[in-house]
Parts: sequence; C-alpha cells; structure tokens
Amino acid sequence: MMNRQVRLKSRPNGIPQAENFELAEALVPEIKDGQVLVKNEFLSVEPAMRGWVSTVANYSTPVGIGEVMRSFTAGTIVKSRRPGFAEGDKVMGMLGWQDFAAGDATNITRKVRETDLPLSLSLGVLGLNGVTAYFGLLDLGTPRPGDTVVVSTAAGSVGSAVGQIAKLMGCRTVGITGGAEKVKMCRETFGYDAAIDYKAGNVADALKAACPRGVDVYFDNTSGAISDAVMAQLAQGARVVICGTAAISSWDPPPMGPRVERHILVKRARVSGLLIFDYAHRYEEAVARLADWVRAGKLKYREDIVDGIEHAPGAIAELYRGENLGKRLIRL
Amino acid sequence: MMNRQVRLKSRPNGIPQAENFELAEALVPEIKDGQVLVKNEFLSVEPAMRGWVSTVANYSTPVGIGEVMRSFTAGTIVKSRRPGFAEGDKVMGMLGWQDFAAGDATNITRKVRETDLPLSLSLGVLGLNGVTAYFGLLDLGTPRPGDTVVVSTAAGSVGSAVGQIAKLMGCRTVGITGGAEKVKMCRETFGYDAAIDYKAGNVADALKAACPRGVDVYFDNTSGAISDAVMAQLAQGARVVICGTAAISSWDPPPMGPRVERHILVKRARVSGLLIFDYAHRYEEAVARLADWVRAGKLKYREDIVDGIEHAPGAIAELYRGENLGKRLIRL
Repeated sequence: MMNRQVRLKSRPNGIPQAENFELAEALVPEIKDGQVLVKNEFLSVEPAMRGWVSTVANYSTPVGIGEVMRSFTAGTIVKSRRPGFAEGDKVMGMLGWQDFAAGDATNITRKVRETDLPLSLSLGVLGLNGVTAYFGLLDLGTPRPGDTVVVSTAAGSVGSAVGQIAKLMGCRTVGITGGAEKVKMCRETFGYDAAIDYKAGNVADALKAACPRGVDVYFDNTSGAISDAVMAQLAQGARVVICGTAAISSWDPPPMGPRVERHILVKRARVSGLLIFDYAHRYEEAVARLADWVRAGKLKYREDIVDGIEHAPGAIAELYRGENLGKRLIRL
Repeated sequence: MMNRQVRLKSRPNGIPQAENFELAEALVPEIKDGQVLVKNEFLSVEPAMRGWVSTVANYSTPVGIGEVMRSFTAGTIVKSRRPGFAEGDKVMGMLGWQDFAAGDATNITRKVRETDLPLSLSLGVLGLNGVTAYFGLLDLGTPRPGDTVVVSTAAGSVGSAVGQIAKLMGCRTVGITGGAEKVKMCRETFGYDAAIDYKAGNVADALKAACPRGVDVYFDNTSGAISDAVMAQLAQGARVVICGTAAISSWDPPPMGPRVERHILVKRARVSGLLIFDYAHRYEEAVARLADWVRAGKLKYREDIVDGIEHAPGAIAELYRGENLGKRLIRL
C-alpha cells in the first residue's frame, strides 16, 4: 500500500500555483509508541497556505522544498500505539496533503467528538475557519447589539461564519463578496442584512448606502481596495480585525495604499491582527458553541468538495480566484 | 481695556500658517451668572490645532472663519459670578487665543490645584500633553516591564512624557527625533536608553540596532516614513498608539504609504487611535500622578515660551517645522 503525497516542488512568489507542487508516492509510515496512523479522508485548502510556503516574514517556518505540503486534514485512526486514541477514532490535525500520516501530540489538533455531524465540518465551520470567525469576531471585534458589522469575503468559510455569529449577537451585518451568485448566497443562506458585490461597482458608495451610521466592526479578510473603502467609513470607536489579506498577491515588497493612521486616530478605532493558533488553548470552547449552533440550524455552512488528491496542487490558486462556492476540501 | 484676539482669517489646506490668522481687538466680555472672567496668562500651541481648523473629517467642528482661534489657555479669574470659583483662582480651559474670556462649565476644563508648581505646566506636562502621554501609553500601549517602547517626536511635549513614563514602568525606551540637539535632550534630559536622529540617516537600520528584539510598544506622533520603519519591526503582540500624524502635511486626499495589514496580522499587533478628550472624566487621576512625578524630579519637562500674542499666528507652523525645543507657549 502506497502513500500518495503532494510535495512542494518550487517556491512561489505570491500565490502558489499547481506547478509549484508535485504528486509523489512514499511508503505508509511505520508508527512508534505514542503515535497513531491516520488515514486522511479530507484535506483542507486555506488562504493561509500562501503564507506557509513563503519565506517572507510570517508566523511559521516555511514548508521546505520537497516536503509534504502542510495542511489541516481530517481522518480516521487505522492503527494506534497512543493511549487514549483508538482505532476508528476521528481526528483533525496538521497531517499534510497525503493519504496517511503518523500522528502524535505535535500534529494532532484534536479528537473529533461531534460524531453526529459530518467529519468534513471539522475542517470548516467546526475547524480552523469557524474557530477563527468565533474568536476574531468575539474577542477582537467585541460586537455589541445594534452594531453594524462589515465582513469581507463574506461568503467564504470564515466570513460566512462571522456574519452569522454577528447576527446571533444582535448585530446588523453587511457582507462584501464578488459576483451575483455569492451576493445571493450571502442574503439567502447566511442571512446578511445587506450584501455588496465588489465586482459590480463602487464599493464606497454601496457601503455608504448600507452603513448610514458607519462601520462599527470590520472583519477583514482581504486588505486592498475593499479595505480602503471600509476604513474611510469607520464609526467612532470602531474595531477592525485583520484576519487575512486575500486581495494582495505579494507582500514582498508591501504594496502601497492610502494611509489609515488618520482614520484610526479620528475615529479612535482599534485594529487587531488575528492569528488563530494563539487561541489553541480555547479551541474546544469555540467548537462546542459552534456545533450547538450548527445542530440548531442557526449556523449554516457551504462546502465545495472535490474528489481526488490530484486536485490539491491547483486548489490554493482556485481559492484566490474565488472559484469555490463554500469551503474547499479535497476528499480522498 | 481691550481684549486682543487672534482670529481665523482663511482656511488653510494642511498646516496653518501665520497668514491664515489676523490679530484683532474686541471688548472684554461681560459675564453673566454662572460665568467667570478669566485673564489668560499662557496660550497653548498644539499640533492638533491643524485638525481644529480643517474641514477634513475630524473629531470636532472646525473653527469658523472670523472666530477666535480655539486653544487651551491657563489664566487667573479676575471676576466671578460662578459659585465655587473665586477671584484669584487659577484655571485651565479651552478659552482661545485672546487676553480675556468668559468661562463656564462648557469651556473651563479644570481648576488648577497644583499651585506649588508653575501655572504654565497646566498646559504642558500637567495638561493635555502629559495626560495624553499618560493614558495613551498606559491605557492603549499597556507597557510591561522589559518592553521596548519606541516614541516618535520623542523630545516633544507628549513624546518626552511618554518616554519618561515608560521608563518609570520598567521599559527600555527608544526615542526618534530630528537633529543632534534633540537627540542629546532625549538622552540627557528625558533619559531615553537610545535616541535616533531621523534626519541623520536610515531610520530602519538605526531602529534595528536599537531594538534587536523588535518594538513592543510604538507611541506614534508622526505617521509617514518614520512609522513605516517602525511598523516593519514590530515584535509579536506589539501595541501601537496613534496619537498624532505630524509628518503628514495634508490628509485630503490621504497620502499613499506601504500597507500595514500584513505586519498587524503576522505580529498579532493592536493599533489604537487616541483622542484625549475621551478621557476627560479621568483627567484628575492623571494630573495627580504626573504632578507627583514632577515634584519628585522623576518627570522632566522643557518649555519654550514666547512673549506676546503677536507670536501666536505663526506658532503652529513653527511647531510643525520642529523649531521649538520644549512645549511651545505664548505668554501674555
């Protein structure tokens, strides 16, 4: 039995493309005491992977050339030499774009306890995406009932959860997304009070119409021109959560944009950077609440699942082109 | 007896110049019940005045053409029809660039109780400047012992207090200022551990040498190229306080600069805008502590006092050119 792997072949400048990866085969790893053998069932595709393969200053060591691509995955334990982990248990962890991985305390994030819900959710609304939305909005965005909350990439895996959690907190939600289909999804599936198609016209004018009293919370996944429009319309005491920078293709060197210091000063705004790994110790708190909302039908999600590991190499670039409708996963 | 006044004559684009003001005379105001007549002794000159005369989005209504220039002043009550305020009492308030003003609850900020210290201090280290440093650093910058605290306009009225309070909190302090004389003042008078002359060479290199473990707290009075250098060297969990934007001559339209979103995200930084008027209810808390530090010789200050109201019109532009050494005041 072989272990198919997607390895980093060359280092991209900017967004990783299919040709930066290669499909290879290796032996299924032998496990040692303290380890489990995990058969991956779903591989995750995240915007953050752009940073993981970049040597530009980031929060983690870049994936080395020839190494298996770093990725969250969800799978089943098929062999265990680790106490407390049994064959058949479902786990989620940083197990890489491959069929099989040896898992231990260093790379298994959690045992998936919500076995009444689909395993794939542990990589989306109950995974990194949902947890990012939860802590980013609640801890850094500190929404108050009646606040106007604006979300960029509003139909995405993180953004759609942010919008819905903000609604649950009593906020008015305004989503910014690209294209008529995603606007419809924002309004009908994710319950945004208003949705703006940034491809359809002037974002600043549309924002002004949708947020007559300004923007109290801005959950930012894009940076770029969308953020420029939002930053100019902050309300007094606004909170901005910087979660991602999907609209910027390369940060080396950083691109130019209109300075924001005056907006921040005049509006007494607070701008916070979010890195979800800092919340690892509170992961279960978030998952428990998110799962309850999913079960109650209050937190909707969309998945966009592609079958076959051969689709992994091009998947990051597809994400940045906005081709997916819902959380992009590779099913093995 | 006449009341000399400096009035706004025309609206500047950017930094107000002498020709935007005119010297005029009016009658000394009659006071009504609930008012006091204040004889101003010191007029303040603040970088913030640039915003007060601008129609670009700001935190206050702009001064109207023909109106007395808005300003903090310190003076003595010469006539009182207000209970609790007696002839001879010293007060500080928003009484404008003029000899006499009718004061009441709307424009008197506080009675000056630190009568053992010079009255002029109530416009500087015990006034808006000191209080701004106090709350900006302690509430928004949240310094921890051992932190590296970088201050722009380090020798200025706000900056010099920030640097010294940070030292009192157990931090390492690095000041950025312009010119050899101010560098010397930073090191010798205000006790900075290091001082960088931004006019002398590469700020980024100098910062790297002065802050080998990165910048934990950045108290920003400048924006512009200095901030660009600091933002690229934030430490993980850094706090940035946006207090002023002295390096930017006009915000209409906002000038371009390198985008900061990635720095904020990767370093999980927090950037907060400070407007000291939001802390009005805690003013006395700050003044009491600052005064104790001044009395104990732990908080040094420099004043740069010019005699005569005729020097007021050009004083804001002089401030932006960095011509003053210490808090610029006009003595009447």
